[in-house]
Amino acid sequence: MAPDVELDTPAAVVDLGRVRANLARWQAECDRLGLANRPHVKTHKTVEIARMAVELGASGLTCQKLGEAEVMADAGFDDLLVSFPVVGGGKLGRLTSLLARANVRTIVDDATLLPGLDSAASAAGKALGVLVDCDTGLGRTGVGSPADAVELAGVVDGYPALRFDGFLTYPSPPGAAAFLGEAVAQAGARGLEPAVVSVGGTPSMWEADQIVPPATEYRVGTYVFHDRNTVAAGAATLDDVALTIAATVVSRPAPDRALLDAGSKALSYDRGPDDGYGLVLEAPGSAIVNLNEEHAYVTLGPEDVLEVGRQVRIVPNHVCAAVNLYDELVVVENGRVAGSWKVAARGRSR
Amino acid sequence: MAPDVELDTPAAVVDLGRVRANLARWQAECDRLGLANRPHVKTHKTVEIARMAVELGASGLTCQKLGEAEVMADAGFDDLLVSFPVVGGGKLGRLTSLLARANVRTIVDDATLLPGLDSAASAAGKALGVLVDCDTGLGRTGVGSPADAVELAGVVDGYPALRFDGFLTYPSPPGAAAFLGEAVAQAGARGLEPAVVSVGGTPSMWEADQIVPPATEYRVGTYVFHDRNTVAAGAATLDDVALTIAATVVSRPAPDRALLDAGSKALSYDRGPDDGYGLVLEAPGSAIVNLNEEHAYVTLGPEDVLEVGRQVRIVPNHVCAAVNLYDELVVVENGRVAGSWKVAARGRSR
Repeated sequence: MAPDVELDTPAAVVDLGRVRANLARWQAECDRLGLANRPHVKTHKTVEIARMAVELGASGLTCQKLGEAEVMADAGFDDLLVSFPVVGGGKLGRLTSLLARANVRTIVDDATLLPGLDSAASAAGKALGVLVDCDTGLGRTGVGSPADAVELAGVVDGYPALRFDGFLTYPSPPGAAAFLGEAVAQAGARGLEPAVVSVGGTPSMWEADQIVPPATEYRVGTYVFHDRNTVAAGAATLDDVALTIAATVVSRPAPDRALLDAGSKALSYDRGPDDGYGLVLEAPGSAIVNLNEEHAYVTLGPEDVLEVGRQVRIVPNHVCAAVNLYDELVVVENGRVAGSWKVAARGRSR
Repeated sequence: MAPDVELDTPAAVVDLGRVRANLARWQAECDRLGLANRPHVKTHKTVEIARMAVELGASGLTCQKLGEAEVMADAGFDDLLVSFPVVGGGKLGRLTSLLARANVRTIVDDATLLPGLDSAASAAGKALGVLVDCDTGLGRTGVGSPADAVELAGVVDGYPALRFDGFLTYPSPPGAAAFLGEAVAQAGARGLEPAVVSVGGTPSMWEADQIVPPATEYRVGTYVFHDRNTVAAGAATLDDVALTIAATVVSRPAPDRALLDAGSKALSYDRGPDDGYGLVLEAPGSAIVNLNEEHAYVTLGPEDVLEVGRQVRIVPNHVCAAVNLYDELVVVENGRVAGSWKVAARGRSR
């Protein structure tokens, strides 16, 4: 997957063939399981990949923030899940505008947010789908029990412009199936219809069969590119990794030390499966032992040869965080640079 | 420094009065010491702050990457230090273009880079200033001894389009003064004139008097905003911190847990003086114990009250990394939003 030309580095380089293979493999698995595939745009933040996924059969898109959803609505996508609490007057106004041009679902774990969401939907003259966010073990957002989930679902159902659509959790730990199954059963007993049970997470994607039912929908993000973390989790091999950071060796001040021009502003400071900050494919015995903003410190193994000026490719620890640092992705197909994609939702954390 | 209006969060908010005070206080110290002040643009990446610093007396700007220097040259700044090795054909072509419109210095620690730099300068028909990069303890780039530094200086001096300008190090540890003093003495003995001895680092800025001479120039970046790291280093107090991240409480799933809408894509994953990821000013007993891409996990102290919807301000661990995530900075003056600045060099890591 190394491109045929010297790139201006650091650069985020996508292998188009691998992207296509990663998208298709997961869509086939969802088709096999009868599971709706609603991939996350937070990883790639590009319109092009979202379009490829939907063309292959994805049921819609997941956006972590309203800003990402706005970019995707601008590009014509009309089935969007905003998997983050929409809080505050400015956000609610934007939600009204978004609803006017797309079918939107969002999540809640707190009844105090419902009046604002209902008003935002009423202003758009359109129903807002609501999934009750369930904490099945992560300890982040979400209600803590099936009973609480169904209680909140009932409150959602009482608002005229809100439509209770089901339950959502992240990730999908072993206990999630029991939690969600119980919530679905209790909801049914109360006459509520949880049409959607949405779970997610690339690391556990190949165990999705264990959560269907109750799951009806799966959300994955990293699956499109993979990275050191998902390879370490066993969800992919290094041969599946479809995005690398191209970097250049800029200094060799000691026999066992090389400095690359890709630091935390090119790779992110995210932790990986070990204490390193990325894998240099051309120096398999090496470790990126530290980052500054624009430098990677590489400790070389005895067999590693990295002369000054050499271009290398780095598998990042966490590709979602790395992509968000770039305005564009360089697209390589069959070893040749085929173009570039704008990271259209880069920085859209609002 | 809290703004008077509810912001769309997450947002990077600058207190203009504090920026002015931070710039002026350091310029006064440099004036007192007879030290040239060449502040780094990597921290703020804005034209507006660069202009304020130069108007107050800065001798020029430091840019960590060529891309930052190009943005500053576009804005009319004509005295630029690129404090990073310029390596590769694409970069050398850009260096030629940059030289045609600004006075440029860069650094080297390897003689193999000199022919390329000389050709780039020749193509511009203009001399390129070169500082020999010295490793005085960091273990990053740089030559390892005064003798090696002077040896390389002599090689630089032999190239027609290169002008040996002196020595540079980062940061400025206790041994740096002896290293640089020795390099200056040895260079003088060989008939070389190190006009510039450039040192840097915000954490040690208030000990600059201990390195003058041999230092003639000081580079600081974080000083304009400060952050948890420079406060922990004793270079500033919390009352000097001029940039905070505005965030909103979006979930309160447990009595001691709050989730904010500012994660690693809003704060960066940079480590701080403890294991936390930022200081929530409105909840002094709290700790940001974890980040996901769009969530901050806050563990609250017994006195902390953070209801859902509340806007808070976070002092980031490392402000340079945080700023690079934003397209604009919200500028607040006397508690009112006075406008915004474009982060013009955001993402310019090339």
